Amino acid sequence: MARTDVDRADVLIIGAGLAGLTAARALVAAGFDVRILEAQNRVGGRTFTAHLGGGTFVDHGGQWVSPGQHRVASLAEQLGVSLFPSWDSGLTVSWKQGQRSTYAGMFPPGHADAEAQVRAGARALVDLAQTLPEGRPWDAPDAAAFDAQTLQQWLATRLSSPLAEATLLRSLQGVFGGGPGDFSLLSALAIVRSGAHEITRLVATEEIGPERRFVGGAQQLCERMASELGDRLVLDAFVTTLDWTATEVSAITLQHRFRARRAVVTLAPTLAGRIRYRPSLPAARDHLTQRTPMGWVIKVHCLYPRRFWAEDGLSGKVSSDAGAMRATADNSPPGGTPGILVGFIEGEAARTLSAASRDDRRRAVLADLGRYFGPEATRPEAYLEHSWGDDAFARGAYGGFWMTGLWTAYGHALTTPIGPLHWAGTETSPEWNGKLEGAIASGVRVAEAVLAELRGAPALTARERSQSSR
Amino acid sequence: MARTDVDRADVLIIGAGLAGLTAARALVAAGFDVRILEAQNRVGGRTFTAHLGGGTFVDHGGQWVSPGQHRVASLAEQLGVSLFPSWDSGLTVSWKQGQRSTYAGMFPPGHADAEAQVRAGARALVDLAQTLPEGRPWDAPDAAAFDAQTLQQWLATRLSSPLAEATLLRSLQGVFGGGPGDFSLLSALAIVRSGAHEITRLVATEEIGPERRFVGGAQQLCERMASELGDRLVLDAFVTTLDWTATEVSAITLQHRFRARRAVVTLAPTLAGRIRYRPSLPAARDHLTQRTPMGWVIKVHCLYPRRFWAEDGLSGKVSSDAGAMRATADNSPPGGTPGILVGFIEGEAARTLSAASRDDRRRAVLADLGRYFGPEATRPEAYLEHSWGDDAFARGAYGGFWMTGLWTAYGHALTTPIGPLHWAGTETSPEWNGKLEGAIASGVRVAEAVLAELRGAPALTARERSQSSR
Repeated sequence: MARTDVDRADVLIIGAGLAGLTAARALVAAGFDVRILEAQNRVGGRTFTAHLGGGTFVDHGGQWVSPGQHRVASLAEQLGVSLFPSWDSGLTVSWKQGQRSTYAGMFPPGHADAEAQVRAGARALVDLAQTLPEGRPWDAPDAAAFDAQTLQQWLATRLSSPLAEATLLRSLQGVFGGGPGDFSLLSALAIVRSGAHEITRLVATEEIGPERRFVGGAQQLCERMASELGDRLVLDAFVTTLDWTATEVSAITLQHRFRARRAVVTLAPTLAGRIRYRPSLPAARDHLTQRTPMGWVIKVHCLYPRRFWAEDGLSGKVSSDAGAMRATADNSPPGGTPGILVGFIEGEAARTLSAASRDDRRRAVLADLGRYFGPEATRPEAYLEHSWGDDAFARGAYGGFWMTGLWTAYGHALTTPIGPLHWAGTETSPEWNGKLEGAIASGVRVAEAVLAELRGAPALTARERSQSSR
Repeated sequence: MARTDVDRADVLIIGAGLAGLTAARALVAAGFDVRILEAQNRVGGRTFTAHLGGGTFVDHGGQWVSPGQHRVASLAEQLGVSLFPSWDSGLTVSWKQGQRSTYAGMFPPGHADAEAQVRAGARALVDLAQTLPEGRPWDAPDAAAFDAQTLQQWLATRLSSPLAEATLLRSLQGVFGGGPGDFSLLSALAIVRSGAHEITRLVATEEIGPERRFVGGAQQLCERMASELGDRLVLDAFVTTLDWTATEVSAITLQHRFRARRAVVTLAPTLAGRIRYRPSLPAARDHLTQRTPMGWVIKVHCLYPRRFWAEDGLSGKVSSDAGAMRATADNSPPGGTPGILVGFIEGEAARTLSAASRDDRRRAVLADLGRYFGPEATRPEAYLEHSWGDDAFARGAYGGFWMTGLWTAYGHALTTPIGPLHWAGTETSPEWNGKLEGAIASGVRVAEAVLAELRGAPALTARERSQSSR
């Protein structure tokens, strides 16, 4: 297409992840014309499934469905994607101060006090989180005080067991891919309020069901929605510039120009900030994007002929204080063959190993697995990895990292539309922030907001729809 | 120019501020062909002078030359720009807990203990800063411990006077435009080591001379360098994309494509991160740019027929604990007419007032000036302001804000070249980081590095220089 050609629609969606495709689907269902502009040559965003033949798959990205995540479960059902319970029965391997042990429950024997403190701490966090107004944590009566302190500081003054403190810190801050930078208590409370399965389980008084996974992988949700949307989806369309007025917006890629009445930017805030906006955005929105770095994780999978750890009564889970990979899980497919262990390299280990060679990372990972699961673990049939910090289009995972002071200063700019520009993505969601469920919820929310605006405005005429002009 | 035209050079410089123009000048002097690509329709970056007729000027951006800043003084001399001492004799106005007083020296009478603590604290910071290896604070023996704590935490455990603590905190963290987010002790020490005039003055044992300003404004340095560089400078050239290989780089704007052997990106890290790089940059560099937000300040000038405050024996300086504007200075031109007061709206006040109308900001500023300097201050002949957070091309000032954990995790990526890509700008400088002097030092440093590489490579042939190809 020559530079002077313009493709017109009602709404442009920037990003074909769960948020963008959910929003697109709702807008199309309401009768509006949509273009989804995706920078990559695939859909899915931070869901990304590798298919290894014979129905074997691994999810490099988001993959778990927690109890209470109704939107994602319902979307899967609509799209014909089945869920199955995550493999997790058996003992956890503990590696602490050079000693290996195995245990059932939360901690190895002899830590009853730490376990009680973890449960009490989780309860206190849940109670405190209830004081936050839904969706506006920055408007809580104590928001300023909560946002000036870190989660770690709050835990340190309340818990006497370092093990309990580390466990709660990891359960909340760790899932955001770690620092550097200080994770704010207000953010932690907002995350607890929005849905945090680790904390929910700690305070649950009855069985709440297992984590579940997608048969065939999480990326299918986006792939199936993309199929439905057909040629409304434009791949390899990296938007460098968004020109906007009060009523119109143009998206410019290296090859094309798209024009519409509204645009929905679904990228994580830090990436949304890398688009050039003309006119430039108000300072509050811009500074939000300057201060919401992505977490950083390298997700690693090792494939084995069978789930040999299960034969030893192990769950595949690890709790470790040493090595590159300190958390693992059994990520085998529903049938249990091949056996697949997934591991997470986070924080400083991710930073160091990201700059190393693949061989060096593999060596470090296999050394860790050998310590945890024995020599058989050091001889996988296949080794796969995805470094989300190095991913050219995500530049991190699992999500935006919320540091002290951020939400009270700039939280309001996460979702407030600017002219024809709307914002979505899991980082904007008051429900299950940082999760697949949050991305879907944000897509539903933004579609409703855009629909309300479009229905208040005259529809595109047939002539406008077919018109091509600069 | 049609899209297929390519302009070739030896080196592309992205950004026509002090760093970029200093580097360009050095490269041209060494016989290499340079293009400076500037997104705006002016040069100067964070130096920006408004001319008000009759030789009256105000500097919206960087403006002060401190004792010991030899590079900037020498550059001014070369370019024929004169320096003059900043107006600062007279008493400071104090506004504390609703009470106004005036004083000479550091604090109002009765705070001898706070003053002693400030001097001792500054001495301790200087001593500790000496333990940092030059240019590599992240390699200090105690780097991890320094970087895990905030400057505020360190001060709080050592100083018993809240006034002393606030003074030192402001003298170091405040000049970076404030939070939110926690300013790391390691950053503070690195800044002290690099040159921090507020601290230098506190520990000086002899008179070290006044702050100086540029007759006619700070932007002249860049304007005069730009004149010398002629049509090597391309204005309105916003680079959206940098394509690179091991030996070559192409810069793409909406209209043009430029190709060269090397490129120097002089933008502040957060803005450098908004360029699209193909292939994408290693995670460490990308995450550095995600985690170095700009400070935020609104700089305000009020013009009066004369320096009426001087007639009352006042310096024009304020130290205040209330209001939108808590720091001011006498920014009158060398001749003293008109009288000009400059004020700084920082942190939360900047965030709030940035979203207000110009009239509301003006009202808030004049109310503050009235409290400090009397009713005459509320009737300026002219009111000028520049909100650096709202500036489309700077998106903040004075510079990058260094939070806990940043430098130990990512500091090394500030200057390490990647393929043909080099990095400059005051944020990269181990000398006077965050100041004009630091920007110039970074330009000198990067030009030397690029020259060393170019001299090791064959020069462009005449044919290559004239060649235009995709």
